[in-house]
Amino acid sequence: MPQFFRIDDPDDPRIAAYRDVRERDLVGRDRQFMAEGEVVLNVLVASARHRMASALIVDKRLERLKPLLTDLPDEIPIYGASQAVMDRIAGFPMHRGILAIGECTDPPSAEALLEGLGPRALVVLLVGIANHDNMGGIFRNAAAFGADAVLLDATCCDPLYRKAIRVSVGASLMVPFARLATGQDPVALLDRCGFETLSLSPAGATPLAGLARAPRVAALFGTEGPGLPAELLTRTRTIAIPMAGGFDSLNVATTSGIVLHHLACVAQEA
Amino acid sequence: MPQFFRIDDPDDPRIAAYRDVRERDLVGRDRQFMAEGEVVLNVLVASARHRMASALIVDKRLERLKPLLTDLPDEIPIYGASQAVMDRIAGFPMHRGILAIGECTDPPSAEALLEGLGPRALVVLLVGIANHDNMGGIFRNAAAFGADAVLLDATCCDPLYRKAIRVSVGASLMVPFARLATGQDPVALLDRCGFETLSLSPAGATPLAGLARAPRVAALFGTEGPGLPAELLTRTRTIAIPMAGGFDSLNVATTSGIVLHHLACVAQEA
Repeated sequence: MPQFFRIDDPDDPRIAAYRDVRERDLVGRDRQFMAEGEVVLNVLVASARHRMASALIVDKRLERLKPLLTDLPDEIPIYGASQAVMDRIAGFPMHRGILAIGECTDPPSAEALLEGLGPRALVVLLVGIANHDNMGGIFRNAAAFGADAVLLDATCCDPLYRKAIRVSVGASLMVPFARLATGQDPVALLDRCGFETLSLSPAGATPLAGLARAPRVAALFGTEGPGLPAELLTRTRTIAIPMAGGFDSLNVATTSGIVLHHLACVAQEA
Repeated sequence: MPQFFRIDDPDDPRIAAYRDVRERDLVGRDRQFMAEGEVVLNVLVASARHRMASALIVDKRLERLKPLLTDLPDEIPIYGASQAVMDRIAGFPMHRGILAIGECTDPPSAEALLEGLGPRALVVLLVGIANHDNMGGIFRNAAAFGADAVLLDATCCDPLYRKAIRVSVGASLMVPFARLATGQDPVALLDRCGFETLSLSPAGATPLAGLARAPRVAALFGTEGPGLPAELLTRTRTIAIPMAGGFDSLNVATTSGIVLHHLACVAQEA
């Protein structure tokens, strides 16, 4: 049973970690992340990989959430506050009324993550995805279609940034991911682990529809504008999603949904 | 050739329509809409259905955009302003530096829109989509996969709201749409026009993958939480997108991308 504490002073030092959430979340967080809202709180409480460090919950939601929280370890503090105090602490109107700080377990290396997968595996490799909405959307799709892992190049944003977790509906706490070292060659690594590599590109050689998949398959996604680097395209199988003439534009998270649906559902019948 | 005017005073009455863009855009706009950014401006200038009434463009972008604007009719005013004046006018930092007011042509009725379509047609019907990001994302996908029309029930938000247009990358200015009257029965209308109606639902009877399509087909999408009303589900063919156990959650715009890709690309091979 966790400990419940009442916070009446927005400057109370016990809730310093929740102060000015927006600014705090953009700087170094030292393996901590901020979970927001009831759906994400549920995922965090149930997580085997991450640990809840504390929570700050508005009064009107606290009673209803207590059953969810009672099995947490004793040492975890749960802070209750009025909406006005919570807004003052967070630095903006916190309508969701639920914040929790989580602590990451040690992230695996990309090699260790891939080596731990089974003979049939679906991996996502992201190159240069810097928008938290897109990152969250891609993780949500990865979870929905059972992707086993997400690899991020060094230029991708953090899937554990508050907004990315929220947009992912908690999926970035669920799908294992690893960040490649600067300069590390992801295609060489995927080749070595026996993955077919599929690069999504408007100019791809093979249309997605009808594509059969290898047992171990990795789908590569780049940014909406420049797309994947030519250097990666030449070393992988390029796949296109045919579009209507005159409007050749898909959001990258939507693209990932279309591709992962195909690889998870359609291709297994082939 | 349009007329170019210099604006140095944020209170200049000539640019009153651009003042406090955020607030203005949420109230009645009387067949006008606000286009934002270069991509959307390009779509508006090229549009056969909508007409540009004026534009407000930051100095540093104006010279480069002049070639795009020179073919516009003489009476259209183009206002130039410094970034500081533009921010003051808009009421927030207008990084994109480009705003334009468009005027809608008379929207067709849903009946007229459907009757004008060919023997092979793809229609989207939206029920209760109130989020502008989702609305924009769905229109973007509708354009990408060549949907012929979008029908909106009376509770959907406006696809011509500034943010919806921006997220759609201009697609909500391209794909014809019509709003149903309050109480109008969309399924009866689609039936009468010979459309097969497919309702997307997590509990749908038929998996999407492998589904063959009728020549005239309509895909129905509801909100992420409650989904489509039971009354519509019972009168249509229900379709599911199978997902991984334990995470049964897709964004509605992503769902539309998966479904429209299937109906546009996959099913035409069946």
